[in-house]
Amino acid sequence: RPPLRIGLAGHSFMGSIHTQAWQSAPKFFDLPLRPEVTAVCGRDATRAGEFAERFGIARVETDWRRLIESDDVDVIDICVPGDLHAPIAIAALQAGKHVLCEKPLANTIAEAESMVAAARESAGRGVHAMVGYSYRGTPAIAYAQQLVVAGRLGTIRHIRARYLQDWIVDPDFPLVWRLQKDRAGSGALGDIGAHLIDLAAFVTGQRLAEVSALTETFVTERPLPSASGGLSATAAGEERGQVTVDDAALFIGRTGSGALASFEATRFATGRKNAIQLEINGSAGSVYFDFENLNELWFHDHTLPAAEAGFRRIHVTEADHPFAGAWWPPGHGLGYEQTFIHQAVGLTRALAAGRAPEPTFDDGAYVQQVLAAVEASAADGSRATPVPH
Amino acid sequence: RPPLRIGLAGHSFMGSIHTQAWQSAPKFFDLPLRPEVTAVCGRDATRAGEFAERFGIARVETDWRRLIESDDVDVIDICVPGDLHAPIAIAALQAGKHVLCEKPLANTIAEAESMVAAARESAGRGVHAMVGYSYRGTPAIAYAQQLVVAGRLGTIRHIRARYLQDWIVDPDFPLVWRLQKDRAGSGALGDIGAHLIDLAAFVTGQRLAEVSALTETFVTERPLPSASGGLSATAAGEERGQVTVDDAALFIGRTGSGALASFEATRFATGRKNAIQLEINGSAGSVYFDFENLNELWFHDHTLPAAEAGFRRIHVTEADHPFAGAWWPPGHGLGYEQTFIHQAVGLTRALAAGRAPEPTFDDGAYVQQVLAAVEASAADGSRATPVPH
Amino acid sequence: RPPLRIGLAGHSFMGSIHTQAWQSAPKFFDLPLRPEVTAVCGRDATRAGEFAERFGIARVETDWRRLIESDDVDVIDICVPGDLHAPIAIAALQAGKHVLCEKPLANTIAEAESMVAAARESAGRGVHAMVGYSYRGTPAIAYAQQLVVAGRLGTIRHIRARYLQDWIVDPDFPLVWRLQKDRAGSGALGDIGAHLIDLAAFVTGQRLAEVSALTETFVTERPLPSASGGLSATAAGEERGQVTVDDAALFIGRTGSGALASFEATRFATGRKNAIQLEINGSAGSVYFDFENLNELWFHDHTLPAAEAGFRRIHVTEADHPFAGAWWPPGHGLGYEQTFIHQAVGLTRALAAGRAPEPTFDDGAYVQQVLAAVEASAADGSRATPVPH
Amino acid sequence: RPPLRIGLAGHSFMGSIHTQAWQSAPKFFDLPLRPEVTAVCGRDATRAGEFAERFGIARVETDWRRLIESDDVDVIDICVPGDLHAPIAIAALQAGKHVLCEKPLANTIAEAESMVAAARESAGRGVHAMVGYSYRGTPAIAYAQQLVVAGRLGTIRHIRARYLQDWIVDPDFPLVWRLQKDRAGSGALGDIGAHLIDLAAFVTGQRLAEVSALTETFVTERPLPSASGGLSATAAGEERGQVTVDDAALFIGRTGSGALASFEATRFATGRKNAIQLEINGSAGSVYFDFENLNELWFHDHTLPAAEAGFRRIHVTEADHPFAGAWWPPGHGLGYEQTFIHQAVGLTRALAAGRAPEPTFDDGAYVQQVLAAVEASAADGSRATPVPH
Repeated sequence: RPPLRIGLAGHSFMGSIHTQAWQSAPKFFDLPLRPEVTAVCGRDATRAGEFAERFGIARVETDWRRLIESDDVDVIDICVPGDLHAPIAIAALQAGKHVLCEKPLANTIAEAESMVAAARESAGRGVHAMVGYSYRGTPAIAYAQQLVVAGRLGTIRHIRARYLQDWIVDPDFPLVWRLQKDRAGSGALGDIGAHLIDLAAFVTGQRLAEVSALTETFVTERPLPSASGGLSATAAGEERGQVTVDDAALFIGRTGSGALASFEATRFATGRKNAIQLEINGSAGSVYFDFENLNELWFHDHTLPAAEAGFRRIHVTEADHPFAGAWWPPGHGLGYEQTFIHQAVGLTRALAAGRAPEPTFDDGAYVQQVLAAVEASAADGSRATPVPH
Repeated sequence: RPPLRIGLAGHSFMGSIHTQAWQSAPKFFDLPLRPEVTAVCGRDATRAGEFAERFGIARVETDWRRLIESDDVDVIDICVPGDLHAPIAIAALQAGKHVLCEKPLANTIAEAESMVAAARESAGRGVHAMVGYSYRGTPAIAYAQQLVVAGRLGTIRHIRARYLQDWIVDPDFPLVWRLQKDRAGSGALGDIGAHLIDLAAFVTGQRLAEVSALTETFVTERPLPSASGGLSATAAGEERGQVTVDDAALFIGRTGSGALASFEATRFATGRKNAIQLEINGSAGSVYFDFENLNELWFHDHTLPAAEAGFRRIHVTEADHPFAGAWWPPGHGLGYEQTFIHQAVGLTRALAAGRAPEPTFDDGAYVQQVLAAVEASAADGSRATPVPH
Repeated sequence: RPPLRIGLAGHSFMGSIHTQAWQSAPKFFDLPLRPEVTAVCGRDATRAGEFAERFGIARVETDWRRLIESDDVDVIDICVPGDLHAPIAIAALQAGKHVLCEKPLANTIAEAESMVAAARESAGRGVHAMVGYSYRGTPAIAYAQQLVVAGRLGTIRHIRARYLQDWIVDPDFPLVWRLQKDRAGSGALGDIGAHLIDLAAFVTGQRLAEVSALTETFVTERPLPSASGGLSATAAGEERGQVTVDDAALFIGRTGSGALASFEATRFATGRKNAIQLEINGSAGSVYFDFENLNELWFHDHTLPAAEAGFRRIHVTEADHPFAGAWWPPGHGLGYEQTFIHQAVGLTRALAAGRAPEPTFDDGAYVQQVLAAVEASAADGSRATPVPH
Repeated sequence: RPPLRIGLAGHSFMGSIHTQAWQSAPKFFDLPLRPEVTAVCGRDATRAGEFAERFGIARVETDWRRLIESDDVDVIDICVPGDLHAPIAIAALQAGKHVLCEKPLANTIAEAESMVAAARESAGRGVHAMVGYSYRGTPAIAYAQQLVVAGRLGTIRHIRARYLQDWIVDPDFPLVWRLQKDRAGSGALGDIGAHLIDLAAFVTGQRLAEVSALTETFVTERPLPSASGGLSATAAGEERGQVTVDDAALFIGRTGSGALASFEATRFATGRKNAIQLEINGSAGSVYFDFENLNELWFHDHTLPAAEAGFRRIHVTEADHPFAGAWWPPGHGLGYEQTFIHQAVGLTRALAAGRAPEPTFDDGAYVQQVLAAVEASAADGSRATPVPH
């Protein structure tokens, strides 16, 4: 079967899990194209070279423009901080390369809109763009979405979404790029709150119409970092710098269909490590999910007699569950890694079929609109602020 | 030991559990006064009489004024809907009777303020008033408060409070008094949201400075009821009436000390029966509680090495836990009933010592101020609305 | 309605909760007879008198024979250590008094058999006997039994029962009566293992045909106690005595219907306080219960499609659940106390109807037979030992 | 760095996860040798060829003897049914190839002993053997073992181990090779019970001294299968054959150090999919684990004050946890796959260091001795049967 050649921009935490996803997908899924990471790009040639050797990637580039010009690349996979998303993605699409862009789509609405425009334009040429809201690839999340589509929740009344982490509770944790507005766009809001906004829309099929918001920076100065990777880092010395993003963001709102929604994203929830907690209550049933037990979906079927009803713990590893049939027998447990493999599978299948992969840049731009409305509301006394669409 | 004679106003769900509490408290706690329910008052003499017989209460009244005039009553225990709280409480205090008043304190700020004034005045005469935020009597809640006081949570960053029920999800559930603004003051907000506001303030010692809110009534018309009790009811026939209270209320805000807080009260969370979910994250630790497992408090000690830290499930039934030593051996489990027994114990001990029992009417008025601010914010585009104090 | 007059023998932990049960039952259940504790008996008149005052009991006796001779007693409620069960119960039945006898029924098979004989004889005269396996009164347990009866579990394959406590892990915990064979009969086996044997038979309707067993005493000497109550105690001094009962007992076996069963009773399971963990797997479904969350029953319906099946957490507080309708609204939580109230309700209703209350002395004797078979097997190299019946 | 060339025998469920492990390990762990699967062997050349293509393996063999003779293979990885373990492993070791052999080590004690002998002999030549008890590679299990070694559990009193599955509850599930004694050696006992025996010994450092056992086959005839893979299969038609292995096995026993242990392995626990439930109670603390939530270890520290003690849920994804630092940030979750990757890492590091990798064939033979003692006890009225060593 024909290859799908990936050029990877960025090779830290996200770069490594994307590569593992591309390399694992064809082993467990029957795919129409065979993904292969043919090149990796990083500013530091030595570090990029080490990455390439580790993952068996043939070619190393230090300028992303080279990646885009490559003949042996079909997809540009963008795993660099948010300030580079727009230039790389737009250039790639214009050059006829498909794009997978890490989330959040962009640091500003303007960038997001130009990316959407580029994606619309290129789609006419059969060149497609996808934004990396990878948690959609969690089988439990995908199954929750199926339950909603099948009407098992009835009319949705409540969406309750929290993303709780605690990795910067210590005031001496350094000022990594994720805490700098010019690199990251925003803090907990855009980094993890963005996932909530996407997941809520994906599972319920409803978008927020308006939001009222608060944001807060609890620790306003931090030591400058020496080195960092993933969510860990070490301080360089005594010198401190200004934290320019939010530590936490809370917002409430309504969807276009009249459901009430509440969201919270924070890096100060001590004891919560990667707790994406999503509960949806409908007239016919409810679902609850927490990524810290990613193989479980809790489903309450409200149409059963009251005496025998209750939230049931579904271990989402049955052959009939989304993605799960490709893996191990029931009960054996998937991990974070699989969410990216499933993302790669979705992208590969869509491209082979000539379809636009989901989530689209338009989906990504919706998230940006919510993020912007949250920031606007927070700056305006929490006033209810419409989400344009 | 001398008696503490209780006159009970109201004899439905709350009346029965209050009576059980008064009658059970002296069996398990060593009390300086011996509580005794000497009279019960209800508009319907037959039903009040049945109640009196069932609970072994000697005297029945049908006018609460009679109860207040009684010589054999030291405490008026108010278990009637909110519109009667102010007149009964104020008259009782003026007549020299201590008062235990069910929550929420009143249906309006004006009523609440006159009740606070009456309580302040009577306190000078040694006549005391308490508001019935009975969940403070849950050992797990009281232990959480002790952990905060002992500094085990450090600086509090987040308060996350939800009270989730589902008893009116069915649109044919009747229009009981709790769904009528003139009787109940508000809906989920005042009935159950009020508990959240009190509990959050009790456990953290912090009050809300401002709130931004949404409220919603999902089902706006319901059948008129024939009879009701507790949270169940049956419809009378085809006729329908207007629901005049909220079905759900969401609000976010900040405490005076800068913690972020989010609250949700709803009767539309299918599958959640009496889920008072309270999580507090501080710089040194966190607690989590859900009343559906009322004997458990989850505590994360963030000062431990990361490798061995995690939320621990404390079964709050040890001899050293608040209230628990009076009961069964560890692990044997207390119920909802005990929260009222502990409330009765607190009131009895305070009165014997000449102290004002807690929560005070002032605590109750604070809750009313938040409820009013929530309604004001919800009516004003969710704008951040200060909580007066 | 006519009274049902109770004479209580013993007034420590069990005596107090039995009394609370008798006094609470008529307040919440519509009973044909009105239970009333008219007398309490204890060897120490002062302590018995204090108990009587605390619980409002009119008369105090110091000789249980007096209690049996009383005209104002209909039921003898036996809450004393096991060595006194047989003499009191037999004398009471012969004297025409109904009997509620705490578990385990007796310290020896011979005693149990004479008690069963006495109960059979007295039943002909309308005088009935019940053994106090109070955990049957847990709504979740009673509901599990209903599910089995309704066929929801199909053919039962596995019974898995554990009763885990940790109150004597400390080797300096004193040598209380429960650790002395002449008073208690056996250790964890008879004290808590007995409950497991009864519950497993009650829920499944199946009795053990044979068992293979191990028992162990981890700490063989302990300080002599000064005072004790419930499961707590303090040491008197340096002197130590011999522990003459088991600390833990494990056994496996088969029921008459071919299910496999495993049982474990221990007081050395650190961190487990009163963990009665019962799981039953059948061809059509499973149930799981842990008394530390006594309001929950976990039910897996294996007839559902695999993708949506899972253990569901049923909060056994719905109006349609056994006993629960008499109490608070759904989700509000019952405690250990209620299990005894439900036991009192069952006994009262049976006596009013002229029926033998359950569990009967025959049920109690079955448990004794299993206990004896366990001890015999443990003493004989764990050899499979039949349970006579 | 030099390669470590793997020749894989068998390419079904186990073959695929082993290959993924070999290929993933060097991407995330810094290894002294670079593992590479150079050849795969299967009886059916077409199917083996498909596997090779899917996983990018260069060479295909249909006779395992060819594999052993290969110059480009350093390790023979045996993923075929148990009846072939001994011949392949012994031949490989004699040919100077290291061996990784799937569990259980063999179908008979005699085979196991000859494998141990071969491994001892080859070790002198620097040729090593490892048995694939892959669950040791679960970070939570490895961390539990560390807690035991560090004395955090004190003196171990209880080991409670269950492996619960439900994939053959349906009597029409076909007679796959795992249900045939000549292929599989035994049923639930050897397939999944073997894991329990190994895990209990690994975590506690204690081996069983004697066991008393029951085994049962609930469904004695099943349809012949057409095709099968992993734990799923379809029936070929009407014809049925005899089930020659156990469906469930229960055993209790004592370790050499006097701890009490209970074990259960079953494929008839409806609703339990891959529930490896392991609890260990010691004088200073306890741990609890269930593979269905493989990222969690529950730890109770009994040295804390009782009021604040409880089982804490440790998300075993911190940088300081075994293996976890190589993966994602805390809370992101690993899967079943990682246990095999960690096994591959352990083997690679041991071989590079010239050490014998663990678990050794001797560890594997211990498990066989227990399995044999279980079968002997079950056949002899559950009599306590010593485990030779």
